[in-house]
Amino acid sequence: MRPEEAYTRLLEFQRETAYLASLGALAAWDQRTMIPKKGHAHRAMQFAALARLLHQRRTDPRIGEWLAALEGSPLVQDPHADEAVNVREWKRAYEKALRIPERLAVELAQATSEAETAWEEARPKDDWKGFLPYLKRVLALKKEEAEALGYEKEPYDALLDEYEPGMRAEELKPLFAELREGLAALLDRILGSARRPDTSILHRHFPKEKQEAFAKELLLALGYDLEAGRLDPTAHPFEISIGPGDVRLTTRYYEDFFNAGIFGTLHEMGHGLYEQGLPPEHWGTPRGEAVSLGVHESQSRTWENLVGRSFGFWRRFYPRAQAYFPELLDVSLEAFHFAINAVEPSLIRVEADEVTYNLHILIRFELELALFRNELAPEDLPLAWGERYRAYLGVAPRDYRDGVMQDVHWSGGLLGYFPTYTLGNVYAAQFFKKAEEALGPLEEGFAQGEFGAFLDWSRRNIHREGSRFRPKALVERVTGEPPSARYLLDYLNRKFSALYGF
Amino acid sequence: MRPEEAYTRLLEFQRETAYLASLGALAAWDQRTMIPKKGHAHRAMQFAALARLLHQRRTDPRIGEWLAALEGSPLVQDPHADEAVNVREWKRAYEKALRIPERLAVELAQATSEAETAWEEARPKDDWKGFLPYLKRVLALKKEEAEALGYEKEPYDALLDEYEPGMRAEELKPLFAELREGLAALLDRILGSARRPDTSILHRHFPKEKQEAFAKELLLALGYDLEAGRLDPTAHPFEISIGPGDVRLTTRYYEDFFNAGIFGTLHEMGHGLYEQGLPPEHWGTPRGEAVSLGVHESQSRTWENLVGRSFGFWRRFYPRAQAYFPELLDVSLEAFHFAINAVEPSLIRVEADEVTYNLHILIRFELELALFRNELAPEDLPLAWGERYRAYLGVAPRDYRDGVMQDVHWSGGLLGYFPTYTLGNVYAAQFFKKAEEALGPLEEGFAQGEFGAFLDWSRRNIHREGSRFRPKALVERVTGEPPSARYLLDYLNRKFSALYGF
Repeated sequence: MRPEEAYTRLLEFQRETAYLASLGALAAWDQRTMIPKKGHAHRAMQFAALARLLHQRRTDPRIGEWLAALEGSPLVQDPHADEAVNVREWKRAYEKALRIPERLAVELAQATSEAETAWEEARPKDDWKGFLPYLKRVLALKKEEAEALGYEKEPYDALLDEYEPGMRAEELKPLFAELREGLAALLDRILGSARRPDTSILHRHFPKEKQEAFAKELLLALGYDLEAGRLDPTAHPFEISIGPGDVRLTTRYYEDFFNAGIFGTLHEMGHGLYEQGLPPEHWGTPRGEAVSLGVHESQSRTWENLVGRSFGFWRRFYPRAQAYFPELLDVSLEAFHFAINAVEPSLIRVEADEVTYNLHILIRFELELALFRNELAPEDLPLAWGERYRAYLGVAPRDYRDGVMQDVHWSGGLLGYFPTYTLGNVYAAQFFKKAEEALGPLEEGFAQGEFGAFLDWSRRNIHREGSRFRPKALVERVTGEPPSARYLLDYLNRKFSALYGF
Repeated sequence: MRPEEAYTRLLEFQRETAYLASLGALAAWDQRTMIPKKGHAHRAMQFAALARLLHQRRTDPRIGEWLAALEGSPLVQDPHADEAVNVREWKRAYEKALRIPERLAVELAQATSEAETAWEEARPKDDWKGFLPYLKRVLALKKEEAEALGYEKEPYDALLDEYEPGMRAEELKPLFAELREGLAALLDRILGSARRPDTSILHRHFPKEKQEAFAKELLLALGYDLEAGRLDPTAHPFEISIGPGDVRLTTRYYEDFFNAGIFGTLHEMGHGLYEQGLPPEHWGTPRGEAVSLGVHESQSRTWENLVGRSFGFWRRFYPRAQAYFPELLDVSLEAFHFAINAVEPSLIRVEADEVTYNLHILIRFELELALFRNELAPEDLPLAWGERYRAYLGVAPRDYRDGVMQDVHWSGGLLGYFPTYTLGNVYAAQFFKKAEEALGPLEEGFAQGEFGAFLDWSRRNIHREGSRFRPKALVERVTGEPPSARYLLDYLNRKFSALYGF
C-alpha cells in the first residue's frame, strides 16, 4: 500500500473512533449533570459496550498494517509536520494498547468501578478497613499494568507517561525538592507575619442564581465562547469536550462560601479555553488534541490563579461582584483580594491555597512512588500520610476521610496522575512570565477588562499546537528553557510577600 | 450450531447493538435540549459515525447465520413466546437492513440532521427558499430508501411499514375517508352551534415556573416516575427513552397560553408511561420494545385527551390549577373545561383540537402520497398545502412557517409517519372503550384522583406486551376487533354534542 493511501485510511479510521468515543464524553457529562437516579445502571452498560467497541478498534490489526506502510516514508520525514505528529502518537497509542491484555483491561475497568463505589460508601463512614481491600486490588492491577506497558527505570514511570508523555520520576524529584524548599521558606514567613486576612467575608450569603449569573458574565468577559459550550452545576466540577464547538464546563455553588463557585468556574474555564483553542480542523487526531494533563492543568491554574486571583482582575470585577452581592458593599477591594488569597495549611487538597497546594501533591507523589517501589504497603498508608502532613504542612488528619481517603483518584486507578497538577502550576508560571516578556505587564490590562492579548498569546503558542511537540519540548519552545520551579517560586514569593508584608 | 447457542449469541449481539444505539438516543435528546449552538456540526458527525457502526452491526452476516440455525427450531415454535417474537422481529429488521446500502444509511443520517438544523434556522425567518434544498435532498433519499426496501403496491407503503408494521396506504384510505366524513359533519354542527367557549381565559398570564411545578405535580399524580426520567423545556416537545430507568420528557411553556405546556406534558407523559411500562428484563429486544408508533401515539393521546381533557380530570385538578394560577379564580370549572375543549379550525396541527386534528393529518397523508407518487413536486408543496387547508378546514396560511414549514418531521426524514398520529387517536378511543367495559366508567375515578386502575389496565394489556403481537393483532386481541374509526367518532360526537349542545 502506498504511504499516502495508508495515511488516508488510518486517518479515517481514527477519526471514526474519535467520533464514537466522543459519544462517551457526552454520556459522561450527562451522567454527572442530568441523568435521572434510576438511569445509572443502564449508563454503566452503555459505557461497557462502548469500551468493548473502542478496545477492539484501538487494537485493530489494520492499524499495524497502515503504520508499517508509513514507516520511513517521506510523509513522516519532518517530525513536526501534521502527518508525522499523528503517526508518532497513533503508533505510541497502538503499541500501548496491544501491550495490555484484554483480561487486564477488563479487570481494571471492573476493579476501579467497584473501588469508586466502595470509596463513595466508605468515606462518609470513615471506614478505611472496609475500603482497603479495594485499594489493594486496584494497586496490584496498576502494578501489573506498569509491567505490561514497560519502563526503563521505575515501574511508576510507565503510569506517569500515560498522563505526561515523556515525564519520569527521576525528573520530578529535583523539581519537587526545589519546590519543597522554596515553599517551606515562604510558608514560614507567611505564618510568621502579623497580617491576617478576614476570610469570614467569604462566608456571607451568596445566592446560587447570582453566582451563576456572575460566573457567566466572567466567562464571556474572559473570552470563553458560551455558544460553543455550557456551564452547569454538578457535585464534583469538571470540564469535558464533546467536540469542536461543544466544550462544557461545570461548577458547584456553595451559598455560604464565595470561592468554590467562582474560582471553580475560572479553573474549568481555563481547561475549556484550551479545548476551544485547539485547531478544529485537526479534531480527532493527536495534532488537534491537548498535549498532556500537565499543560492542560497549566491553563486551568493560569485562569484560576495568575489571572483570577490577581489584584488587577478584581480591580475590574470587584464592582461587578458587589453589584451581584450587595453583602460585599462594606468590604474594600483590598480586603476582598487579601481574603481570596489567604494562606493556611489545611488537610484537604482541593481547598488548598496557591502556596500549600503543591505540598499536598508532593505528599501524593512520594507515597505513590513508595507504593510502586514496594517500600510502602497499602495498609501503612495512613501512618505515612500523617507523618508527611505533619512534616510538610504542620497539620495532620484525625480520621481517614480527611486524610488518605479524601480523593477518589486512587480508587479510579489514577496513579501517576497527581504530579501533573504540580507540573501545571510550574508550567503556568513559566508561560505567564514569557507572555509578560512578549506583551508587557498584564495586570494593568486585566484591570481594564483586557484579556484578549493574553488569550491570543496562549492560543498561538500553546493551544493551536495541539500535540505537535511533546510536553517538555513545548515548554522549551515557548519559554526557551526546560520546565523549572523557579518561575512558580518567584511568582509566589512576589505575590505573597506583598500581601503579607515582608 | 445448536439453536440454543445461536439464540444466546444473537441475543448478546443485539443487546450490545441496542446499548450502542441508545447512546444515539442520548445524543438526540441532548441535541434538542442542551447542546450549545456551535455543537451541531460535530453532533451530525457523531450521528453519522454511529449510523455507520449500527448499519454494519445490523447487516452483520453472523446474524444471518444465527437466524438460519434457529429456523424451524422448537425454540421458535410458539409464535408468541419471547424467543419466537425476538427472532421474528430480528429477521424482519435484518432483511430490511440488508436492503439499505451503507452509503444510503449514512447519507440519510447526515442529510436529516442537517435538514433539522436548517429547518430550525429557516422557520423563524420564514425562509422557504433556503430550506427547500434540504427538504428535496431528504425526500430524494427517502424515495431511494423506499425503492431499496421494496413494496407491493406503493413506494409509500415501504416507509409506512417502518412506523406501523403491516400497515398499507390502501388500508388507510377508507379509514381516513370514514373519519373525514364523520368529522366534517361534526365540525359543521359545532360551527353552527350558538354556544361558544371563552378561550381568552387560556391567554391570561401563566408564569413559566408555575407551569413547570404544576406539570411535575401532574406527572407524579398520574403515575409517571420522575426518578426514572426528566422533564425539560424544548422548542418542539418529544419523549425519548435512553434506557430502562431513563425515559425523558420535554415540553414548552408559553406564558400567555395555558394549553401548550400542560397538555404538551400530558401528551409526552403518555408516551413516557408506555416506555416506563415496557418489561425492563426484555430491554434491547423486540419483546421489550414498543410495538408501533400508532400504538405509542394511542398512549399519548389517551393521557392528553381522553384523560387530560375530561371533565372528571379537571374536577380533581382545577382547584390545583387555580392555586398555581390565581388568575383563574374567577373562572368556573365548567367554563375552563369548555375552553380547553374549544373547537376551531386552525393552521397549526400541534395546537389543533380533537375534532380538527385528524384533518391536519389527512392533509399530510395526501401530500406525502402525492410526493411519493411523483404527482407533486416539493416546490409546489406550499400551493397544494393551501388548497387542501382551504378545502378541509376552511383556513389557509399566509406564510410558510405556519404552513408547510410548521413541522420538523419531514426534515427528520419522517415521511410515512404522520398517519400513525391518526391511528393513535383511533386506537386510543377503541382501547379506552374496552377499558371502561372492564373497569366501569373511569371519569368518576379520575375526579377522585384515581388513575392507577386505568394505568394498570394499560400496563397489563398494552405496555407489558412489548412487540409480542403485530400492532393490528394487538388491537384485535385487546378489543376483540380490528382497528375501526367508529369508536373515535362515537367518543367525539358524544363529548362535543354535550359541550356545544346539540
